[in-house]
Amino acid sequence: MSLGQTVLQQLAWRYATKVFDATRKISADDWKTLETAMIHAPSSFGLQPWKFMVVTTQSVKDQLPEAAWGQSQPRDCSHFVVIAARKTTDPDYVQKFIETTATIQGVPVSALDGFKQAILLKTTGMKNGHLEWNSRQCYIALGFLLETAAMMGIDACPMEGIVRDKFDEFLGLSGGEYTSTVACALGYRSSQDKYASARKVRYSASDVVQYI
Amino acid sequence: MSLGQTVLQQLAWRYATKVFDATRKISADDWKTLETAMIHAPSSFGLQPWKFMVVTTQSVKDQLPEAAWGQSQPRDCSHFVVIAARKTTDPDYVQKFIETTATIQGVPVSALDGFKQAILLKTTGMKNGHLEWNSRQCYIALGFLLETAAMMGIDACPMEGIVRDKFDEFLGLSGGEYTSTVACALGYRSSQDKYASARKVRYSASDVVQYI
Repeated sequence: MSLGQTVLQQLAWRYATKVFDATRKISADDWKTLETAMIHAPSSFGLQPWKFMVVTTQSVKDQLPEAAWGQSQPRDCSHFVVIAARKTTDPDYVQKFIETTATIQGVPVSALDGFKQAILLKTTGMKNGHLEWNSRQCYIALGFLLETAAMMGIDACPMEGIVRDKFDEFLGLSGGEYTSTVACALGYRSSQDKYASARKVRYSASDVVQYI
Repeated sequence: MSLGQTVLQQLAWRYATKVFDATRKISADDWKTLETAMIHAPSSFGLQPWKFMVVTTQSVKDQLPEAAWGQSQPRDCSHFVVIAARKTTDPDYVQKFIETTATIQGVPVSALDGFKQAILLKTTGMKNGHLEWNSRQCYIALGFLLETAAMMGIDACPMEGIVRDKFDEFLGLSGGEYTSTVACALGYRSSQDKYASARKVRYSASDVVQYI
């Protein structure tokens, strides 16, 4: 089977898991792979305006359903990831990114001045849009996390249904530079989850794809 | 090599392609795989608030750089995809989605009434946020498209730098229910693209991941 066919097979296999098997945990090696995939997600200008908050401590996970409309996934999954977006993209953050880029690529900071000016032109021109722009980037990372989990046979449930203020408190983000944007529970499906056998609902290509 | 390791290898291989080989095209079979992966992306409630506009006609692609700050990728790639987000999530759209779900899952529409009410509670409560919410979902599909392309050894360049109004005109979307949100050029890198050998810039896990 080609890798493309394997992707389609695994994307058909995955579903938004409603009930996790609380006894099964993702191995340290598998988690490292998921984490690395998420870190490798692209973002606008490569700015990576995110933090990945990973909850594995059971006593903390036990408190999360109350901030997620009673849903059990944050409690019963193996790793609960909250992707937090940067609230602003200020010049200091851009400068840090440029310096990191120069170090990794082995070039002087001055060689990146045109790139830096392009980023500043974009980011200083945005009035209130930074958080929303950064939040969109977080959804690319979510996509990478979900597809990679599917490839590895690891179950996942993307979750927008979280009370962001409460999560910011739980995660120690309140008043800081990042805020909870979207979450994802990861682990293994329970044999009791009836949603595992529900047919996936997707519009057909003729409904959602248009060729020009 | 495990599938997880293959994912990491391919995500390290991919980069935002700046120069495409205009002579190389994605085969029909490979394109069908990419399209199917994109369609399989999850979205909030499964609402799929998107249209995938795929430009392959060269005479149209030739006009796109002028609406993309002169960038060559829309012209020289094989398939240029614009992901368009639905501007609203009105009750008619929700009803259509519920009816599609009932048909696919073989259940009466009435069996989905609780689900429908949950969606309406969320969507009628959003004042002006529908387009932004729907746009975020488009970035999950973008993530699926990018990771799947990488798995298949197909190059890609995600592009926010498009003039959305002009693209809406080119794509016949102006005044309609959908609007251009983010784009992605797909095809094969040119041997002249010096960015192919640049080191990927990512913050380390200790910078962007926090365990709780």
